[in-house]
Amino acid sequence: MASQRFTHHISQQFDNELEAIRSRVLDMGGLIEDHLNKVLEALSNADADLAEDVANRDDQGNAYETEIDERCTEILLRRQPAASDLRLVLAVSKTITDLERVGDEVEKIGRIVLNLVTADVPRSFYLSLLSIGHHVKRTLHRALDTFARTDSHAAVQVAGVDPEIDEETNAIMRQMITYVLEDPRSITRVLDIVLAARAFERIGDHANNICENVIYYVEGKNVRHTALEDIEREIGTE
Amino acid sequence: MASQRFTHHISQQFDNELEAIRSRVLDMGGLIEDHLNKVLEALSNADADLAEDVANRDDQGNAYETEIDERCTEILLRRQPAASDLRLVLAVSKTITDLERVGDEVEKIGRIVLNLVTADVPRSFYLSLLSIGHHVKRTLHRALDTFARTDSHAAVQVAGVDPEIDEETNAIMRQMITYVLEDPRSITRVLDIVLAARAFERIGDHANNICENVIYYVEGKNVRHTALEDIEREIGTE
Repeated sequence: MASQRFTHHISQQFDNELEAIRSRVLDMGGLIEDHLNKVLEALSNADADLAEDVANRDDQGNAYETEIDERCTEILLRRQPAASDLRLVLAVSKTITDLERVGDEVEKIGRIVLNLVTADVPRSFYLSLLSIGHHVKRTLHRALDTFARTDSHAAVQVAGVDPEIDEETNAIMRQMITYVLEDPRSITRVLDIVLAARAFERIGDHANNICENVIYYVEGKNVRHTALEDIEREIGTE
Repeated sequence: MASQRFTHHISQQFDNELEAIRSRVLDMGGLIEDHLNKVLEALSNADADLAEDVANRDDQGNAYETEIDERCTEILLRRQPAASDLRLVLAVSKTITDLERVGDEVEKIGRIVLNLVTADVPRSFYLSLLSIGHHVKRTLHRALDTFARTDSHAAVQVAGVDPEIDEETNAIMRQMITYVLEDPRSITRVLDIVLAARAFERIGDHANNICENVIYYVEGKNVRHTALEDIEREIGTE
């Protein structure tokens, strides 16, 4: 079994503290997912107000990061955790950095959507962004789900989706090039769309990092620079 | 004084371990700076071999990150550091993540330079990349220098350079738009240059993060989401 149960500590209070940081990460993840959903909704409905709302919303994510980071430092200081407890704290610390960066990317996408909508760019022009956006949204959700269930095997599976996102970004790049060749004045909008696609791609990278943090916590292995097949071989399949 | 001296521990061995991770971060920083210099040299001399070399070189940076990360975990486990020692370990752990991401961006830029050079794109076309590249290189060097000297006041100064880099990127964007309007067939190269400019910009962001890690270590304050003026007010000026 790849799932990890909480070890029981002599101090119930310590168990509670560990459970609390885990649960705060999931709260933070929920908030960031909510922002991502909103930016996709703004894109889908050409909703300038909603896009502007998302473009100015990253403060909440930052506040979560600061709070959880302080809790992690407190635990390291007062509890001096070992083994899987230490790995949990370190995995949480890395995961909130990734989530905060996802929040930054969502904010950037919000600004771009606001540009596109207020410039009355036809919806057909940026439909491919919706497709990569929904793909990335599912990946982030699945990554957070492996964190919630501390399931390293699922984490390996989710981490494997990444190349598909890269392929979708490249398809958007090719499509945008044809738009510019047809009408060079589309260049400003094309640059917006290319940068939004790259921002979605980076959200996919962060989802991937979150999966690697789960694998590190559960298996005690740093797999950040390991090929997927090698990870699968190392931790075995179910 | 903003510089921090090493506290002396009863165990000389512990002092050595802390000094060792600090010094390994600087080794890793030197390696990444060397890659960044090489990619700028490849850009400046239209050197395809050098660009290809950089595009395939990130493994060394990854190896450093894995090694230093393991040393940090070891120290947390065996030494259970407190106060500034704990902050040093956490700052190191975050700094190597930033350096590793800088390495990723340099690798991406290497691939783009290889594209530009092999496609015989005129040097005048991408001269503005050299300018932002040298700017970012100086910023990264200064950020690593504040880490080496554990100087939080210098770190606040370096962190302040960031908006200039953003401005340079925006200037490149505007220039590229005029190129496309003059000749739509330049779009493929223009997209390469825009993505390279954004990659340089992100290296500037990581240099900024490194400065924030130095401030956290020296001052014990998390300033990641604090405005520059507020940081200056909080830690005082020399």
